[in-house]
Amino acid sequence: MTHGTDTLTRPPARLRTLVAAGLLAAVPAMPAAALTTEERAKRGGEVIRSLNNGQPQPNLERMREEFPFLAEATEAYALGDVWSRPGLDTRTRQLAAVTAFAAIGETAFMKIHAGYALNAGVSEDELKEIIYMVTVPAGFPRAISAARSLSELFAERRLSAEGGTP
Amino acid sequence: MTHGTDTLTRPPARLRTLVAAGLLAAVPAMPAAALTTEERAKRGGEVIRSLNNGQPQPNLERMREEFPFLAEATEAYALGDVWSRPGLDTRTRQLAAVTAFAAIGETAFMKIHAGYALNAGVSEDELKEIIYMVTVPAGFPRAISAARSLSELFAERRLSAEGGTP
Amino acid sequence: MTHGTDTLTRPPARLRTLVAAGLLAAVPAMPAAALTTEERAKRGGEVIRSLNNGQPQPNLERMREEFPFLAEATEAYALGDVWSRPGLDTRTRQLAAVTAFAAIGETAFMKIHAGYALNAGVSEDELKEIIYMVTVPAGFPRAISAARSLSELFAERRLSAEGGTP
Amino acid sequence: MTHGTDTLTRPPARLRTLVAAGLLAAVPAMPAAALTTEERAKRGGEVIRSLNNGQPQPNLERMREEFPFLAEATEAYALGDVWSRPGLDTRTRQLAAVTAFAAIGETAFMKIHAGYALNAGVSEDELKEIIYMVTVPAGFPRAISAARSLSELFAERRLSAEGGTP
Amino acid sequence: MTHGTDTLTRPPARLRTLVAAGLLAAVPAMPAAALTTEERAKRGGEVIRSLNNGQPQPNLERMREEFPFLAEATEAYALGDVWSRPGLDTRTRQLAAVTAFAAIGETAFMKIHAGYALNAGVSEDELKEIIYMVTVPAGFPRAISAARSLSELFAERRLSAEGGTP
Amino acid sequence: MTHGTDTLTRPPARLRTLVAAGLLAAVPAMPAAALTTEERAKRGGEVIRSLNNGQPQPNLERMREEFPFLAEATEAYALGDVWSRPGLDTRTRQLAAVTAFAAIGETAFMKIHAGYALNAGVSEDELKEIIYMVTVPAGFPRAISAARSLSELFAERRLSAEGGTP
Repeated sequence: MTHGTDTLTRPPARLRTLVAAGLLAAVPAMPAAALTTEERAKRGGEVIRSLNNGQPQPNLERMREEFPFLAEATEAYALGDVWSRPGLDTRTRQLAAVTAFAAIGETAFMKIHAGYALNAGVSEDELKEIIYMVTVPAGFPRAISAARSLSELFAERRLSAEGGTP
Repeated sequence: MTHGTDTLTRPPARLRTLVAAGLLAAVPAMPAAALTTEERAKRGGEVIRSLNNGQPQPNLERMREEFPFLAEATEAYALGDVWSRPGLDTRTRQLAAVTAFAAIGETAFMKIHAGYALNAGVSEDELKEIIYMVTVPAGFPRAISAARSLSELFAERRLSAEGGTP
Repeated sequence: MTHGTDTLTRPPARLRTLVAAGLLAAVPAMPAAALTTEERAKRGGEVIRSLNNGQPQPNLERMREEFPFLAEATEAYALGDVWSRPGLDTRTRQLAAVTAFAAIGETAFMKIHAGYALNAGVSEDELKEIIYMVTVPAGFPRAISAARSLSELFAERRLSAEGGTP
Repeated sequence: MTHGTDTLTRPPARLRTLVAAGLLAAVPAMPAAALTTEERAKRGGEVIRSLNNGQPQPNLERMREEFPFLAEATEAYALGDVWSRPGLDTRTRQLAAVTAFAAIGETAFMKIHAGYALNAGVSEDELKEIIYMVTVPAGFPRAISAARSLSELFAERRLSAEGGTP
Repeated sequence: MTHGTDTLTRPPARLRTLVAAGLLAAVPAMPAAALTTEERAKRGGEVIRSLNNGQPQPNLERMREEFPFLAEATEAYALGDVWSRPGLDTRTRQLAAVTAFAAIGETAFMKIHAGYALNAGVSEDELKEIIYMVTVPAGFPRAISAARSLSELFAERRLSAEGGTP
Repeated sequence: MTHGTDTLTRPPARLRTLVAAGLLAAVPAMPAAALTTEERAKRGGEVIRSLNNGQPQPNLERMREEFPFLAEATEAYALGDVWSRPGLDTRTRQLAAVTAFAAIGETAFMKIHAGYALNAGVSEDELKEIIYMVTVPAGFPRAISAARSLSELFAERRLSAEGGTP
């Protein structure tokens, strides 16, 4: 597994693979105005899988049964409308999302989106730079807590790459 | 004035000019461990001018007289240490900073850093995408307040480009 | 003008009038899954007018030109999807919204939704009770700032009811 | 146990039982000006038991030994003064409180007050609507975290109703 | 007027004068358990005047008419119960309060309590140290905003000491 | 072990011992302008040990390997620059820090700094007063969560004083 230290070449190889495999083919760049919520939710599901190595997001699936509207809104609005917009490339969007979640102290969500960022070719070092920067707008506790969550994520992915399943 | 609508070409022309003019020459990529605070503050001043069209930041100058340590910390730590790190390009760092300031509701700081982002070749449309994304981690009021501040910034810069001095 | 002191009778007369006038007729209780974004935005516009004495929300209209996606998301998601859901009556939803905006310190949004609450038959005294309660989860500054915004709102509406146009 | 799915009939049966049993009799509607702190704390204890199926709040009892003033302030001010005010019915007050705790990210307190809300006849579906609404003022992470806490609460109460003791 | 630069001698002269004048005589150190709310509010009024050069707090007075419970709670609970407790000396309590208001971004309240701190013999330099420290837990924007409010306060007091009435 | 109940005599014995032992000798009161980052980090290490019974801070040490800049910034800026400033005595600075961490809901950091405060001669009762005060600016949940963390800290230190090693 090669995500990590190289901040210059940035090979979003996995993402390109997904697009090549047609997994992202259905994510249109056009405005959502003509889409039904069902279609937007479908598009959101594709965004998730494109970010998450082709897998659905387990928390979202769990939420679906008891909080169907929240699951639908996450899928159709957050992912299907916002995250599928073409105005920012995936790397930049994920780095910005990680910054926001870290700055407001939502470390669990930061960890999920940091994982998506790594999948999209962001390096571990770039994520660390984001965390360093968070000290300025939001103070040291938010940055330190985010650093701890990132450490966990890095360790889990290394374990997983070696054949374990965290 | 051409900052704005083109999200593909992104000409960080002004930044390149500053580098060419030697304004950024003194910002070394090396770790700060051997630098004195005075040198770090000098480096921070260069970062500011590279972001702010060659000008010092007026709020920072005002703070210097009555809150000298806070001005020094902003210059030496926030700008000289953090902002001068080479691990993120200027565009990505500024987009991430704008996201953080918008997400925590610090719109005045967001506006300053959105201006730096535009100076670094970020387009108006990319800033709008950041603001749209803020609805997801931080809710609609934060995004709507940020949108209002961005509108002011865009208007001030258009006025200024036409010869006015806001 | 009679909104105010009576916490028992609560006459959502204006709301009933709007429904009678057909303004709310197009707000269906059915799930949004089959609606297009255009239809959801239309439904959101109806929700706004039902809350705002038949008028559009001026801030939303201003946002539409420069931040079209944010205006659309506010209309289609926030109002068309969430606010149009039938599971809470208008009074309860508006009181809960006022509590949330006050607790997170978003007084401008609190003021707008407090106005909608008054239009829906909530009394001034009930809004004051909400503000008193905010001291417990969120502390005194948030409650005191919210009280100041409510005072402004009450004064503007009294002035407006007397023929002025704030 | 029938708390839950019916959003129309809303039987605050338990509350009515408590009132009938005289448990709420000592909670006067009059202003607190003439009451001593001891009397206000007593009134707060009655509010707690009226919300909590006749039981004291265990966290509050634990706090009493080491943080006596904080326990007294919670009892005398938060519950005895604020929560005992007659200007909002118990259902509305609890729904508003749940909204505030969810919006500021205090999920543990949200869970306690959501339990009181269920005791007062609020349905599970109404609590879900509150959580859906929280996405708008406070973003998706706050709503999703609140949803997770609510799921736990619902499961614990079902278990408890079946004879278990969580 | 001598409030300010001397961080060593710290002459809480004004406070001692007030005590000598009997203005603080009625603030008992005993627990509030036996006091009525009316007595606690009276005690809170004395706390305010002891902090505010013998004057009532104008914002509080304005609030009294339209939000009587909030004014009473501020006076009886916040000031009469909490602020009158003997476990912290006035200087330390005010410095801690200034830190809290600055850290949560409530600069208007910070400014009021910074004024009380100066009245109690805290120096301008000590308040600046508090603001410098806020960068660590809460980030630079909160500290810089607090610095700006402190600058205003210092200027207003200098103007006022020279005979102006801000 | 005698930390605790006496709020009047406050014997910062341990601190005086450290100074006598020369552990604090290298923390100069002069401005940091001429110091290199390496020297500032060294000074920060001395501040930590002076606060932490002569020991390094374990979390900081763990962070050093994976997030070297964040560890350096915490040591050189937060501790070496801010915490070493002479304008506030250690007791006051720690009480203010505890207030800030409690008010913004960062209880883990509050607990660490409350431990430093006890080491510096602050009494348990003074820390409790800080927590009581937090109800006013930041609401009851923040104060109650801080109280719970303080209880843990007090218990751990009692256990440790009796020979256990928590």
